[in-house]
Amino acid sequence: MKRDFVKPSIPRGTRDFLPAQMLKRQRIMEIIETVFKKYSYEPLQTPTIEKLEVLTGKYGEEGEQLIFKILRRGTGLEKLGCADGITEATFRDFNEIVDFALRYDLTVPLCRVIAMYQNEIIFPFKRYQMQSVWRADRPQKGRYREFYQCDVDAVGSDSMLADAEIIAIINEVLATLGFEEFKIRINNRKILSGIVEYSGADKSLETSICIAIDKYEKIGPEGVTKELEERQVSEETIGRIMEVLEINGDNDGVLKDMGTILAKSAIGLEGVAETRELMGYARELGIPEKNIWVDPYLARGLAYYTGPIYESVVEKPRIGSLTGGGRYDKLVGMFLGRDIPATGTTLGIERIIDVMTELDMLPPAKTSTSVLVTIFDESSRSASLNAVTELRKANINSELYFKAADNLGLQLRYADRKGIPLAVIIGPDEVKDGAVVVKDLRAKSQEKMGRNELLSKVKNLLAVKP
Amino acid sequence: MKRDFVKPSIPRGTRDFLPAQMLKRQRIMEIIETVFKKYSYEPLQTPTIEKLEVLTGKYGEEGEQLIFKILRRGTGLEKLGCADGITEATFRDFNEIVDFALRYDLTVPLCRVIAMYQNEIIFPFKRYQMQSVWRADRPQKGRYREFYQCDVDAVGSDSMLADAEIIAIINEVLATLGFEEFKIRINNRKILSGIVEYSGADKSLETSICIAIDKYEKIGPEGVTKELEERQVSEETIGRIMEVLEINGDNDGVLKDMGTILAKSAIGLEGVAETRELMGYARELGIPEKNIWVDPYLARGLAYYTGPIYESVVEKPRIGSLTGGGRYDKLVGMFLGRDIPATGTTLGIERIIDVMTELDMLPPAKTSTSVLVTIFDESSRSASLNAVTELRKANINSELYFKAADNLGLQLRYADRKGIPLAVIIGPDEVKDGAVVVKDLRAKSQEKMGRNELLSKVKNLLAVKP
Repeated sequence: MKRDFVKPSIPRGTRDFLPAQMLKRQRIMEIIETVFKKYSYEPLQTPTIEKLEVLTGKYGEEGEQLIFKILRRGTGLEKLGCADGITEATFRDFNEIVDFALRYDLTVPLCRVIAMYQNEIIFPFKRYQMQSVWRADRPQKGRYREFYQCDVDAVGSDSMLADAEIIAIINEVLATLGFEEFKIRINNRKILSGIVEYSGADKSLETSICIAIDKYEKIGPEGVTKELEERQVSEETIGRIMEVLEINGDNDGVLKDMGTILAKSAIGLEGVAETRELMGYARELGIPEKNIWVDPYLARGLAYYTGPIYESVVEKPRIGSLTGGGRYDKLVGMFLGRDIPATGTTLGIERIIDVMTELDMLPPAKTSTSVLVTIFDESSRSASLNAVTELRKANINSELYFKAADNLGLQLRYADRKGIPLAVIIGPDEVKDGAVVVKDLRAKSQEKMGRNELLSKVKNLLAVKP
Repeated sequence: MKRDFVKPSIPRGTRDFLPAQMLKRQRIMEIIETVFKKYSYEPLQTPTIEKLEVLTGKYGEEGEQLIFKILRRGTGLEKLGCADGITEATFRDFNEIVDFALRYDLTVPLCRVIAMYQNEIIFPFKRYQMQSVWRADRPQKGRYREFYQCDVDAVGSDSMLADAEIIAIINEVLATLGFEEFKIRINNRKILSGIVEYSGADKSLETSICIAIDKYEKIGPEGVTKELEERQVSEETIGRIMEVLEINGDNDGVLKDMGTILAKSAIGLEGVAETRELMGYARELGIPEKNIWVDPYLARGLAYYTGPIYESVVEKPRIGSLTGGGRYDKLVGMFLGRDIPATGTTLGIERIIDVMTELDMLPPAKTSTSVLVTIFDESSRSASLNAVTELRKANINSELYFKAADNLGLQLRYADRKGIPLAVIIGPDEVKDGAVVVKDLRAKSQEKMGRNELLSKVKNLLAVKP
């Protein structure tokens, strides 16, 4: 082992999570996982390393450039540039150099899993997955090269109940995390097709039109008109689109008007009917009406959605979109050769964590340790070891101070800096009296008591909210 | 998005974890984490991707070959061999091709973290880390290329209390996981040095001699003698080593005899004294004497250990070693330029999971879902949605069947196949009567009751152990 003093650093866009951050991340992920399981969604994990061919052709040209690729072993390339190594190497085929790649998202691995274990999996397959993904992107604030994604999907059901359930999960996750006001925007890919059909535009303009419509909230009718004009959409078509965009009202009202205006578009009506069905289920699953916003102008990335699409917008605190998803009935077929219907959402977990940290939405938890047992001196050390053992036996997270030579002030300051709320002190006097001192570092108070009262006193103090 | 039917597979030595496996893995990891936190050790996570230079020179030549390396972005190599790409590429330096690598273990990242955040971290830094590592090894049964490691370490204390605490954690983890009989073997690097000193062998033979001694349990005195002869150790030296190896007895007896025989070796006596101190603390921390085995012949990989070393052997069930660790006071210095004392252990978590699965040491938990709420038909669907919502509000993990068109038999078979213990049935009769049927799929019994009794009935049935 060489003793070389590498100045230590990590790749830009990656992060170390020290304990205080980890405890926060663990708490948020636990809350989310608990909701997933409550709705009968179960964990899946896939390898970090996928075969390159599994990821190739799935993310578009731009996406593909962001895939981290792994050098084949045994190429001998490691010796390039070494004093006693080879001096030059030549390659004609990329496959000679690379075989594996790092997971880029959780959707492609899900589809691969469905295809590989189709005879083993019981459908509908309700799974969640919280794992890291990697993107060789330019790092910037809030955008990382290694980050967690959090997906929850139901694969194998074409029922609107599945979509409603995913939306109920989003609703419960956001509420449980403490977001006070939010709306889950709901639309349907088929309504968007219907709008395009109604407008009289050529089918080939569908994506352009949807992208423009999606910006309605932001840029208003004039902005959308301008954008459509730039995209060579005819005046008449724009007129009809604007007519649709004027639809307004509560969720049922919007659906009613949309049904009237799209009366001649079969696909449009199908979208309206699906949304109506979905809304009915959502209500029966207990989602408050105020949290749902039927929004015919939500488009999202349309690449693989086939039915309902949904996105959540947090309004208080005002932080924008935290989740996005929809139905993708054709995607699994890419791996399987036959289609399996599926719907699900991504929760922007890094965004959620960043926002909750910024807004201090979690009560502070610098440490998971509740008690520091100090060691007064060598003569009383044994009594301290005995005390810490008793606390641990009672499942109270307890730290033992290691250095009897440090004076008590130093030991208590250590507890304070770490954020440990209680300290136990047993000096020679306490040993003689069969006693113990419990100090509450939050209240800056302390009490001497019989050694046999230690456990109940600590439990009582910990039950008090800080 | 291309629709190409890739026959889906994953790299050899990597694994998908479907929900039933994941639930088992989660439970085992949770048990272990709970113990760590109880002893005041807190979570750390480091990036999957490290700079290559951080890993280089740390794992020996053989280890280095097993590091997965990541291709630099922007080399243009992706176009090699494509129809419209480049046809040949030449490189003179490895750094032109590779910049990052996958984490190979959890120890080097820990040392890097200590060095990077030395002014932020409060010492002693008690951390655990459960994350994947990657080795480009030849996969075989029980050996993976992507697998979890689980390390728990105390950095910044030279006290034997720290070593004793790590051993107490090992003891509690193994006991809590349900291993009935195991021994934690304890030795000290300094005792081994003392033995070599006593034997009169040259210091340069220390590693060879320790490797031979380590095999004593397996190959007996004749085997060790033969191995030492092969390593050119003199007859006289072998005689003295054999003399030490004859020491036998209980823990205190072994330490006493070892102290006598190593009386002239300062380093040997230091090792004996440290072990004695460690044993005293271990007892005071409540570790049963029968679980500790002071074994002067345990050597382990000696590369970076400087004091106590420890390893656990499970005897019932007889499965060999599950943990290994020791004190490494010089390792952090590789990154920091100054030494920081540290001690800790690895828990062979994949081995633990494999063994617990093989021996069926965990009660079956095929699913985390407790109740399936069926949908009898469209007319009663609303009542079912209402019931599942009530159960979820009470934090009971409940699945809603999505397809009302499936007959009840099919729905109940689904619950049975998934291992869900209870099913709720609400048909038109029940709707009319304000009733509900709860079926216990384990006991194959069912009961009709008032709708308002649903929650308490389900709770009662779930409280019954299967």
